[in-house]
Amino acid sequence: MSLDQQYDVSCGPLVGDLTERLRDHAVDHVRRCCADQLAGRPEARVAAEALPGYVSGGKLLRSTFALVGWSCGRGGSDAAMRAVASLELLHCFALVQDDVMDGSPRRRGRPALHVTLSAWHREQGLSGSAERFGASAATLFGDLLLVWAEQMLRESGLDDADLARAWPLYDAMRAELVVGQLSDLVNDTRAEPTWESVLDVARRKSGNYTVRRPLEFGAALAGCDPSVTAPLSRYGALVGEAFQLRDDVLGVFGHPSTTGKPAGDDLRNRTATSLVVVARDRAGPAQRRAMRALAHLDHVDADAVAAWQDLICDTGAPERIEEIITARVDDALAAIGCADVPEHARDALTSLAHRCTDRRD
Amino acid sequence: MSLDQQYDVSCGPLVGDLTERLRDHAVDHVRRCCADQLAGRPEARVAAEALPGYVSGGKLLRSTFALVGWSCGRGGSDAAMRAVASLELLHCFALVQDDVMDGSPRRRGRPALHVTLSAWHREQGLSGSAERFGASAATLFGDLLLVWAEQMLRESGLDDADLARAWPLYDAMRAELVVGQLSDLVNDTRAEPTWESVLDVARRKSGNYTVRRPLEFGAALAGCDPSVTAPLSRYGALVGEAFQLRDDVLGVFGHPSTTGKPAGDDLRNRTATSLVVVARDRAGPAQRRAMRALAHLDHVDADAVAAWQDLICDTGAPERIEEIITARVDDALAAIGCADVPEHARDALTSLAHRCTDRRD
Repeated sequence: MSLDQQYDVSCGPLVGDLTERLRDHAVDHVRRCCADQLAGRPEARVAAEALPGYVSGGKLLRSTFALVGWSCGRGGSDAAMRAVASLELLHCFALVQDDVMDGSPRRRGRPALHVTLSAWHREQGLSGSAERFGASAATLFGDLLLVWAEQMLRESGLDDADLARAWPLYDAMRAELVVGQLSDLVNDTRAEPTWESVLDVARRKSGNYTVRRPLEFGAALAGCDPSVTAPLSRYGALVGEAFQLRDDVLGVFGHPSTTGKPAGDDLRNRTATSLVVVARDRAGPAQRRAMRALAHLDHVDADAVAAWQDLICDTGAPERIEEIITARVDDALAAIGCADVPEHARDALTSLAHRCTDRRD
Repeated sequence: MSLDQQYDVSCGPLVGDLTERLRDHAVDHVRRCCADQLAGRPEARVAAEALPGYVSGGKLLRSTFALVGWSCGRGGSDAAMRAVASLELLHCFALVQDDVMDGSPRRRGRPALHVTLSAWHREQGLSGSAERFGASAATLFGDLLLVWAEQMLRESGLDDADLARAWPLYDAMRAELVVGQLSDLVNDTRAEPTWESVLDVARRKSGNYTVRRPLEFGAALAGCDPSVTAPLSRYGALVGEAFQLRDDVLGVFGHPSTTGKPAGDDLRNRTATSLVVVARDRAGPAQRRAMRALAHLDHVDADAVAAWQDLICDTGAPERIEEIITARVDDALAAIGCADVPEHARDALTSLAHRCTDRRD
């Protein structure tokens, strides 16, 4: 297989193959770190068994986008694969700690890590609060993933000169990710944020972290020219925003089998997402009063979720969000349509734009 | 001032001067990161104001040991100062998250970061639990400190070749630190651990992280020969263990003005430290029953602390721990007495061994 073929990340069977290879690299590194650093520690065994599952259970969007960024400048290598696969460990750090902060019970189709650790504490009959242990220990495993991610990148085998171009972006991405989580802590429907501020959070959180920064990171590792990175950035910002808008739709209407979360999770958590805010802005006075009453319930139960979903539908907000998603994807494809990127990358970006933003149920 | 004078880290006025310079470097980096990454975010402002205080409030033991390690091989430079000062940010990451996990109210003479953040949440009248917000936000600021520490080291100005020698040690130190925290979560007097296992935790936690690894890290950055690093490692393991034993004495008998924590904090938290375990092992059957009863109280109050302290004294455990501390320091000084290290470093290590392990109240 030629180097070019190795990096045919367009739609087709090779996407699957590349995704599996990225997954293998990420899981290998986690397994090796667990073996090196956690062996012989009973309180770590249950997490060491669970961590590879969390790392491998994702869609590997971030590492795939980074690989496409890389492929705009250079041919394939195992070193490059390892470097971009490290983003999956970084993402896993964020998920593990996010689940602690949100008290989320499940992640990627399995119990969240803090839940698994609490259960272990209970089974062992240890003293003290099992919940507290689960939260603290999961936070520490999140810290380890953050360290392992950076170590995997540094030890990927890429030259220091390649890495040196990407470190500033990597640091900025990590900070942006953590600061995005911080903003999420004060995100609450009841505070009635504006559409602009919600869109700003969406851009910062997903627009940047899921699509734009990984693309830029891969392109920086490969030493791409600004003529290549500028359209990638523009595409990344647009597709990232559309991805977050899709996620916001699923957060209200998605099925648990698709989202891995309870139905109407964003409503239950009173997260002020794009869909919730557009609905509020389009609502008549009576609808708006009804939404506000639901948001202020002590407990948003299944009936409240259903009533809130109906109200949102009545405003026409879902159709409006679909229009925006379509427009963002169209603009993104236009941005790379005439850009100075290789044909195989353009094909991959076209396919990925749809994969990221299409209805998923 | 000549380069050699700059690195006279022995006792005397220059120690103070060097400590201040390390402090300035650490605080500068934190301030710059806050300005770059947290500006304009109201939920971050209170932490951005508080973080420099936590970083500057310590004794800078770790960066000082690392500087001594460096000075065994090379002369002074601002790049080296920045590289070793980065350890203070790493330490601060551990403290901030540790306080969340232990629910500690104070740190370095001020409210713990999670307490400050909870208070801010309450003042702003935000919805949701202020405690939960404080814990989550402090965890995220801990994550930022972990990232900033590594960034500070990488951008210190040292050559890639110098850094390359130290990265494996740095990664191992970070993992050891996090895994040490994890072990602490299951540390409970009520589980009645053995003296050997408690000493193992003491070595891993402080023996390595506070003294040994920083020394080795500084020496690795400077490219020291094994003939230099071997005695530094031996010294570090011994002084580190003595440091932790001193800390264990203070955890039972220390005054809040010295420790910055409530009196008898380790007893209240039922932490199985060296002192507690030696006392238990030396106790007669009646004393042991009394200790066990205190450990199993629902709430270890001030009277229980006083009774437990008396029981510990009656066993002669404090004198036994003092003997061990003295023996460890003697062995450590012997290890560097005839070692191949510069005279100024030997002087500094002698002074630091006493400063780390002397009675502090």
